Amino acid sequence: MNPSQRTVAEVGEFALIRRAVAGRSQPDTTLLGPGDDAAIVRASDGRVAVSTDMLVQGRHFRLDWSSPHDVGRKAVAQNAADVFAMGARPTAFLVSLGCPPDTLASVVEGISAGIGEAAEALGAGVVGGDVVQADQVVVSVTVLGDLEGRAAVLRSGARVGDVVAVAGELGRSAAGLALLSAGVESSAGADHDNPLVAVHRVPSPPYHCALAAVDGPGGRATSMTDVSDGLLADLGHICEESRVGMDLSGAALRADADLVAVAERIGVDPQDWVLTGGEDHAFAGTFPAGTALPAGWTQIGLVRAGSGMSIDGTPVTGAVGWQSFSV
Amino acid sequence: MNPSQRTVAEVGEFALIRRAVAGRSQPDTTLLGPGDDAAIVRASDGRVAVSTDMLVQGRHFRLDWSSPHDVGRKAVAQNAADVFAMGARPTAFLVSLGCPPDTLASVVEGISAGIGEAAEALGAGVVGGDVVQADQVVVSVTVLGDLEGRAAVLRSGARVGDVVAVAGELGRSAAGLALLSAGVESSAGADHDNPLVAVHRVPSPPYHCALAAVDGPGGRATSMTDVSDGLLADLGHICEESRVGMDLSGAALRADADLVAVAERIGVDPQDWVLTGGEDHAFAGTFPAGTALPAGWTQIGLVRAGSGMSIDGTPVTGAVGWQSFSV
Repeated sequence: MNPSQRTVAEVGEFALIRRAVAGRSQPDTTLLGPGDDAAIVRASDGRVAVSTDMLVQGRHFRLDWSSPHDVGRKAVAQNAADVFAMGARPTAFLVSLGCPPDTLASVVEGISAGIGEAAEALGAGVVGGDVVQADQVVVSVTVLGDLEGRAAVLRSGARVGDVVAVAGELGRSAAGLALLSAGVESSAGADHDNPLVAVHRVPSPPYHCALAAVDGPGGRATSMTDVSDGLLADLGHICEESRVGMDLSGAALRADADLVAVAERIGVDPQDWVLTGGEDHAFAGTFPAGTALPAGWTQIGLVRAGSGMSIDGTPVTGAVGWQSFSV
Repeated sequence: MNPSQRTVAEVGEFALIRRAVAGRSQPDTTLLGPGDDAAIVRASDGRVAVSTDMLVQGRHFRLDWSSPHDVGRKAVAQNAADVFAMGARPTAFLVSLGCPPDTLASVVEGISAGIGEAAEALGAGVVGGDVVQADQVVVSVTVLGDLEGRAAVLRSGARVGDVVAVAGELGRSAAGLALLSAGVESSAGADHDNPLVAVHRVPSPPYHCALAAVDGPGGRATSMTDVSDGLLADLGHICEESRVGMDLSGAALRADADLVAVAERIGVDPQDWVLTGGEDHAFAGTFPAGTALPAGWTQIGLVRAGSGMSIDGTPVTGAVGWQSFSV
């Protein structure tokens, strides 16, 4: 019998880990890979950037909407975006996976493969992990990153007069999720052709733009974050940490034709996806006025004195993004 | 109303994180603490040791048997033991916490406080985390450690003729768990007086012994691990990685009077707890023959050629330790 069609209880924890690790190469930053009490990763400049995220089945993903492989790739993307948003490059991922004992081994293997392939594409290793029994599938990923001698770009560095800019797509993941939720798209194979649904399943953060914002020929970002909770929420974090406000341009944030078309089918305002949709993992940040924006970045507003966000001068009120315990 | 008596859904993710972080000091290894996309931790010798573990309610802990504070302290201990077992010292912890929306905020706060206090006692920071919605309480902890210029002690370094030794207690956590499981102890306050139950709730790994094994006046360990799955299982990992066998001394591993007394009440063999009980997080390792063992270490056997474990010459067979998907 194909072992992937057996359950995780039948295959066992140690065999699952062995199979997840087997055949995966490690970059030269992995000084000691999985298999001992801890892994050892190079931290070339004596500092390590580190972030962690937990994805829960039914809350952050559905296995009838995303393949296990998609879930693994998305987990890597959202963690990688966090270290790129500091101006660092990911070196290593650790993965803890909880699942019910009757989960097919193929689910665990798919998630592991997605994580492994996405990490490898970034030049990073998967250096450790854990597989445990839980009532639902839970994927907890930690990423380590190397600043390679650069100063980190913090959320607290925005200054009044700076240009607010984004790199990457906004609202497309939220639109894809709305399509799935509305049942307009079935869980059958044809979904894969819808680019918005594909973005929801596996975002493609423009990692090179984050590095260009710290190391490129253009201006250096004074603050940066990835858009995980929604543009207004994440820029709001920069405002709070930097003790500034921001005025955004409605025209620069207009929903494109793809979003408008889908919004009409579902009967919602596509602008909400652009302003409050998370999970695209675009990068948003601020740059000194008068400097050229790095490649891939587009101006969407200006940093102003005060606090909070406004659009074309009108203050934004109400819920602006993802909350873990919202209904 | 006391906010701790409200549910996590009422308090909200961001407020929970703010309250978990508030008032907690950071060691000087924390170059940038929580609140940005990633934290930044010093890695003084250009390497970082890293390990992760996931604890699931009902599987790894029960909130009627352990307080939230206990759960947090135990999560830190088991992760810290992993980096000490490499010869490293913990510098930072990251915590992802999943829980149902109707969980009392006091549960999340208790776990956070236990983690924070235990990390602080180790001189380490809690530098990041995540709070998400899940069907049960799930605590995922990642630890970073600093080797401080030392060579890591691997599981693969045991050599034929080496002395096998342990530092710390064996079987006491398993005995405490057996007491709780047998219902001999109630969940009322009086439990706290039973030292075996207390060890199950919060192990006290002899961290200084792990460092003495790499940096002390005695012999340097040729291999080391922490005892998390059970002594035979964890020494078995050293045997596999080092391609050696081990013969242990039954006399050196005899259950003490505390264990014998409890085993008689429950009607089991206390020797099983010593040999296969996990979660004490003792340290086990091997040392060159003829060198003095570091303080706190006791000889329990010898490394021999071949493979597998034997006790007084008799091969050990059958299940020897914790399996994540055992019934």
